[in-house]
Amino acid sequence: MTLIDGKATAAQIKAEIKDQVEKMVSSGGRRPHLAAILVGHDGGSETYVKNKVLACEACGFQSTLLRFEDDITEAFLLEQVQKLNEDATVDGFIVQLPLPRHISEQKVIEAIDYRKDVDGFHPINVGRMAIGLPCYISATPKGILELLRRYEIPTSGRRCVILGRSNIVGKPMAQLMMQKQYGDSTVIVCHSRSKTLKEECRQADIIIAAIGHPGFVTADMVKPGATIIDVGTTRVPDATRKSGFRLSGDVDFEHVAPLCDYITPVPGGVGPMTICMLMSNTLSAARKEYYD
Amino acid sequence: MTLIDGKATAAQIKAEIKDQVEKMVSSGGRRPHLAAILVGHDGGSETYVKNKVLACEACGFQSTLLRFEDDITEAFLLEQVQKLNEDATVDGFIVQLPLPRHISEQKVIEAIDYRKDVDGFHPINVGRMAIGLPCYISATPKGILELLRRYEIPTSGRRCVILGRSNIVGKPMAQLMMQKQYGDSTVIVCHSRSKTLKEECRQADIIIAAIGHPGFVTADMVKPGATIIDVGTTRVPDATRKSGFRLSGDVDFEHVAPLCDYITPVPGGVGPMTICMLMSNTLSAARKEYYD
Repeated sequence: MTLIDGKATAAQIKAEIKDQVEKMVSSGGRRPHLAAILVGHDGGSETYVKNKVLACEACGFQSTLLRFEDDITEAFLLEQVQKLNEDATVDGFIVQLPLPRHISEQKVIEAIDYRKDVDGFHPINVGRMAIGLPCYISATPKGILELLRRYEIPTSGRRCVILGRSNIVGKPMAQLMMQKQYGDSTVIVCHSRSKTLKEECRQADIIIAAIGHPGFVTADMVKPGATIIDVGTTRVPDATRKSGFRLSGDVDFEHVAPLCDYITPVPGGVGPMTICMLMSNTLSAARKEYYD
Repeated sequence: MTLIDGKATAAQIKAEIKDQVEKMVSSGGRRPHLAAILVGHDGGSETYVKNKVLACEACGFQSTLLRFEDDITEAFLLEQVQKLNEDATVDGFIVQLPLPRHISEQKVIEAIDYRKDVDGFHPINVGRMAIGLPCYISATPKGILELLRRYEIPTSGRRCVILGRSNIVGKPMAQLMMQKQYGDSTVIVCHSRSKTLKEECRQADIIIAAIGHPGFVTADMVKPGATIIDVGTTRVPDATRKSGFRLSGDVDFEHVAPLCDYITPVPGGVGPMTICMLMSNTLSAARKEYYD
């Protein structure tokens, strides 16, 4: 059994990015510049954004954090988005989700210039990804592809079962794994309504679990030799931790891991890759790899 | 076994659309207006466009056909697209594919205002469909959903095997069949690289075949009681026909049909639904159902 080390892989990728950035700078180029908008004081969002700023430093990027209170109006937020769209010194930016209830997330996402949409959530990027055109691929699916690639896990023609059909993991993962240029797999998408979910898992070469249900994938659902990618990160109360919680994946790691050829732990698997792929997208933005 | 009659269903839908159009007109509204650009003299394209014009008449739409020779430049074609984008009397329009090789189809598709993109090929519509937002859904997948719905074929939680991963059928079909608001199925996407294609088919409740390989789905690949949707329309030489060819589906209809609960014939199954769904999208465009 090989433990897929997302933390080490992410560190490696960040070092590679920093290397490329220093080359850009030493040949007279500008540092890539990522901006983030954070509205309110959601605990999870604070942590994510802080980590994004740290990742920018690690990669040699310039970063800008714009903070607003959660009583700002939608119109005000849309103005800030528009300013970043027009700011030629900003290569890419994100608006940290979730937003306060009185603001339409979809409206804000669609207001972002798709050429700066390094989160890959704008419908143009979603659509281009679906039909295999160059674009920003959102961070979690892109991070999973990168782990599969760097660990040289065979995917072509193999059965890849995706658990969950969310817009940010399940659906894009399915679209990517079925494409010849990415997974080239036979893709099976299961969800809460699937009558044969357990049977599908038992016949899977690869399981990508993204349902947010701690310990859902048990040993009896896994074929020996399978690869397991665990995207679950549910906060489970834990009085022994200073934070009061621990992160739990969708997989019963203790009993499943011994059966697998490859498995990602939680934490330290897919999680660290996510921010690192945001950095990769920002580098692509600075280089205008996908759009002029 | 129930034969799914696409021709009769399409006629019914066109009658329903005409009914709604006449109500719009009698309450002072304008007739929906579909425009089509046809470049060159490809035999298939000529037929499709002619049928689209006839369908417009059947639905009470205004239609405009713009014909150009196949030596026009890309820049000229892009200008024509721009004119239609700006023409307030045109609700929706299509550029008939394929285009001559010296013209980038993707560039032309992306030049179409997505609010008039009744073919649903613009990345914005592709992306919005993928994440379940209101949009133009391209005609063939939409037609298949409509057949499943009108024949009340259960899809929720059932195994739907999609053969093929083309941008115009396989991929969008997968995206739609996995969504709660459409198929809500367990979706399995197979293609040329799939090692378990036959086994997947044998366990399928629904097979949607879109690979363009005449007679590929044979009786030994079908579970009794399955529903078969045959999207294949390959021209096979046939000296007994005036045209010199006949259309062949991806399914060995003669031997498969007796096993099925529901099956679409070729021709007369999915085919007639396609143009009729273009009419449905044009009506939605005229009503500004998805976009202002």
